[in-house]
Amino acid sequence: MSNTPLYRLSLSQMVHRISSGECDAVELINACFERIEAREPELGAWQCRQTRERYLQHYRKHEDFYRSSLLRGLPVGIKDIIDTRDFPTELGSVIHQGRQPPDNAACVELLSLAGGVVAGKTVTTEFAYFRPGKTANPVDLTRTPGGSSSGSAAAVADGMVPVALGSQTAASVIRPAAYCGVVGYVGSRGEYSLRGVQPLAQSLDALGMFGREVDDIRLLRAALLRQPVEPIAEPGRPLRILVCKGSNIGECEPAMEQALVQLAGRLEQLGAELVEMHSCDLLRRLVDVHQAIMAWEASRNLCAESQQAAHLSQPLNALLEQGLSMDQQNYLDALEQVSRIGHWLWANPEHQGVDVILAPAAPGVAPKGHDSTGQPYMSRPWQALGLPVITLPGMKSDDGLPLGLQLIGRSRGDENLLGVAHHIQSYLY
Amino acid sequence: MSNTPLYRLSLSQMVHRISSGECDAVELINACFERIEAREPELGAWQCRQTRERYLQHYRKHEDFYRSSLLRGLPVGIKDIIDTRDFPTELGSVIHQGRQPPDNAACVELLSLAGGVVAGKTVTTEFAYFRPGKTANPVDLTRTPGGSSSGSAAAVADGMVPVALGSQTAASVIRPAAYCGVVGYVGSRGEYSLRGVQPLAQSLDALGMFGREVDDIRLLRAALLRQPVEPIAEPGRPLRILVCKGSNIGECEPAMEQALVQLAGRLEQLGAELVEMHSCDLLRRLVDVHQAIMAWEASRNLCAESQQAAHLSQPLNALLEQGLSMDQQNYLDALEQVSRIGHWLWANPEHQGVDVILAPAAPGVAPKGHDSTGQPYMSRPWQALGLPVITLPGMKSDDGLPLGLQLIGRSRGDENLLGVAHHIQSYLY
Repeated sequence: MSNTPLYRLSLSQMVHRISSGECDAVELINACFERIEAREPELGAWQCRQTRERYLQHYRKHEDFYRSSLLRGLPVGIKDIIDTRDFPTELGSVIHQGRQPPDNAACVELLSLAGGVVAGKTVTTEFAYFRPGKTANPVDLTRTPGGSSSGSAAAVADGMVPVALGSQTAASVIRPAAYCGVVGYVGSRGEYSLRGVQPLAQSLDALGMFGREVDDIRLLRAALLRQPVEPIAEPGRPLRILVCKGSNIGECEPAMEQALVQLAGRLEQLGAELVEMHSCDLLRRLVDVHQAIMAWEASRNLCAESQQAAHLSQPLNALLEQGLSMDQQNYLDALEQVSRIGHWLWANPEHQGVDVILAPAAPGVAPKGHDSTGQPYMSRPWQALGLPVITLPGMKSDDGLPLGLQLIGRSRGDENLLGVAHHIQSYLY
Repeated sequence: MSNTPLYRLSLSQMVHRISSGECDAVELINACFERIEAREPELGAWQCRQTRERYLQHYRKHEDFYRSSLLRGLPVGIKDIIDTRDFPTELGSVIHQGRQPPDNAACVELLSLAGGVVAGKTVTTEFAYFRPGKTANPVDLTRTPGGSSSGSAAAVADGMVPVALGSQTAASVIRPAAYCGVVGYVGSRGEYSLRGVQPLAQSLDALGMFGREVDDIRLLRAALLRQPVEPIAEPGRPLRILVCKGSNIGECEPAMEQALVQLAGRLEQLGAELVEMHSCDLLRRLVDVHQAIMAWEASRNLCAESQQAAHLSQPLNALLEQGLSMDQQNYLDALEQVSRIGHWLWANPEHQGVDVILAPAAPGVAPKGHDSTGQPYMSRPWQALGLPVITLPGMKSDDGLPLGLQLIGRSRGDENLLGVAHHIQSYLY
C-alpha cells in the first residue's frame, strides 16, 4: 500500500479505491476537508465553501445514489464565474458581491447528476480577466498560481479537491495548471455546455477542468457529455507530433525551451515522429488577433459593468476601452484571420497526419509575487483557433518548480487529444 | 400628414417624429400602452409587463437622457428566455415559474444604454422549443403566430411595441415574423452577445429582432453593437441573388412558391441577376443534421430540466431522449456535415459573387389553430450554417394572409444583408 496521503490521490485513484472497497468515500471526503481546513488560510483558493458537516449530511442522505455513481460523491471545486444555486457567484468583482443565481450552470448539474458534489466556489480573477484574487501558488506561496482559474488550479494542486472546473478565454486554465503543476484541460469551442458560465468573449470562451492525471479529466468529460468513459484506443501507428517552440509565439525562458526539447526527444526515442513548426509569423499574429477579438466581445458582454469603471481594474477598463474604440470591421478582420490561419495550420502539407501539437504552456515557471497572473501569450493562438488543449505537468525547473507543457488537438478532436495525453503522460514522471 | 395611427409607426418613423418635434415620446409611449391594454386580452403576447404609470414615471425621471438617446425611451419587448433583473424570466415553463435572474442579459443592458425601455417580457414557447404559449396571431386570431418568439412577433405585428428581441435556434424568429407579417432578423452566429440569453443549443442559438421595417433592425443592431448607424452603401453593380425554391428543402405550398417567383421576377426586372440553386439534396440533408445537433446539445443544456420529465411537453421530452440516445460521433459527424455543406454553398462556382439567397421563410401562411407553431424546416439549413437571415413581409396569399420570404446572407455579412434587405424591401409594398 502506497504512503501517498489520501488527499493526494487523483480522482481516478479515489474512485478505484472506493469501488475496490479499499476506502470509503467519507474517508476521502474527510481527508479533503482536513486539507482545506489546514491550508486555506495561507492558500486562499476558495471564495466560499460548503461546511464539512453539511457536505457529509448531504452525502449520507443520498448515499445509495452516490455509491453507484460515476463520481462517488467526491468533492469538486467550481470557479466563481460558474453559476450555482446554493452558493453566490460573484465573478471576482465587488460589483457582484452577494450575487445569487437562480439556477446551477448546466456543467454543475451534469457533474451532480454523475455524483460529483460542489465543495465550494474557487477564486477567479476579476471577470476571468487579469486582476488576481487572493490565491497563492501551493508549490511556492510567494508566487502567483496563474489565472484566471486561480483557485481551481491551486485547490487541485494542493489536494483540497481532486478535481475542479474552470474556464479559459485566453490562458485561464492552461497557465494556472502549468504554474501549479496539475493537469489542466480546455475543451474545443462548443464541446461543452456553457449555460450559466458567465461569458467574457463568445468566440473564445471554453470550459476547462483540472485534475491530477489525464484519467481524471476523462471522468469529468464523461459526466459533462452524459456519455460512458470510453476505453483509450491504442495508437496503431507512431504518434506524429508537431513541435512548436515557445520562441515561435513570444519570449520564452531557456528552462522552458529546454523542457520542451527534452520531452520531444524522449517521445522520439519512444518511436514518435517529430515535425518542427515553421512559418510561425502566423501564430505570432494570432496573439494580437486574439486580443482584438476579446476586446470587442468583452466590451459588449460587460456593457453593464463598464458603466461602473471605478469598480473595475485598470487592465479591464483598458480592455473595454480598446473594444469600444474599435470599428466592427477590425473585429471581423480579426475573425477572418483566425479562420485563414486555422486553415493554414491543418492544410499545410508539412502538418499532414499530425496527431497533436506540443508547445510550452507558459513562458516559464510561475513568476514571483501576487500582483499579476503571468503572461498569457502562449495560449492565445490556440484559444483563438478554438482547439482543445491540455497542460501536462511533470517537467521541472532546476529549483523544482513546475514547467508545464501543453498538447493541442484538432477542433472537436477532444477524445483523441485525451487519448494521446494519456499515453504521453506516462513518460513524464 | 398620414392617417397611420401612432402605434402603427415603425421605430424609425417614431424616432424621426420625435427628433423633428412632430411628436413627443410620451405620446408614442401612450399610444403603445393603449394598444396593449386594448388588445392583450385576445392576443396574449405578454408574459408580464411594466405598468404604464411606472414606465412613464421612469421615462420622466430620465427624460434628458432619453431625449438625446438613439432609441428615445421607446418601448421594447423582450422574449422571456432573455434574463431581466426587473422582471421574472420563466422560459415558458412551469419549472421556472417566478424565476428571478440577478442580472439583465447583455442585450437588454445594451438596448437600455441606447435609450430603449423594456415594456415587458413576451411569451416564448417552452424553452424556445415547440410547445406554444398563449399567444394568437394578430392577423387572424384563430391562427398560430409561429414560435418560439411568439409574443415578440405578435406584439410588434399588432403595434403594441415598435420592436422586440427574440432568439432563434431552428425557426424561432424567421417563422413568426413571416406568419405575423413583420420584419424578423437573426444575426450571424457569434455576432451579438448572448450573455443572459438562456441557451438551447450552443452551435445554433442566435439573437433575433423584430421590427416593422429594415431600418428598425438597423437601429437595434447599432445599439447592440455600440456602433453608430452606418449609412447604407448603394450597390455599385446589379445584385446577384441565389434563388432557393421551397421544394428544395421540403414541402412548400403553391402560394408560397408563387410569391417567391413573383418577387424574384420583380427583382430581375429591376436589374438583379438571378441564379437558381441546384444540388439541393445537401440543403435537405441539413434539415436532419440540424435536428441532430439540437438534440445532442439541448439534452446537455437542459440536463436539470430533463430530470422533471412530467413538467415537460412530449416533443421536448422526445428531443432530449433523442439527444441522450446519440453517440457523440453522430453529433460530431453532423457538425462536420454542416462544415462541408457550408463550404459547398459558397465555393460552388455557380454561386460566385452571390450577394444574398432568397428563399421562403416558412412553407406557407400561418396554420390554423394554436396547438402547434407550424413547421420549422425552411429555416433549419440556414440556421445550421450560422448565417444571418431576415424575413421580409409584404407578399400576401389570396385571402390576405402574410407570406414571408427570407433573405440569407454570408456568415458575418450582417451589415451587407441589411443593406440589401433595405433596397429589396422597397419593392415589396
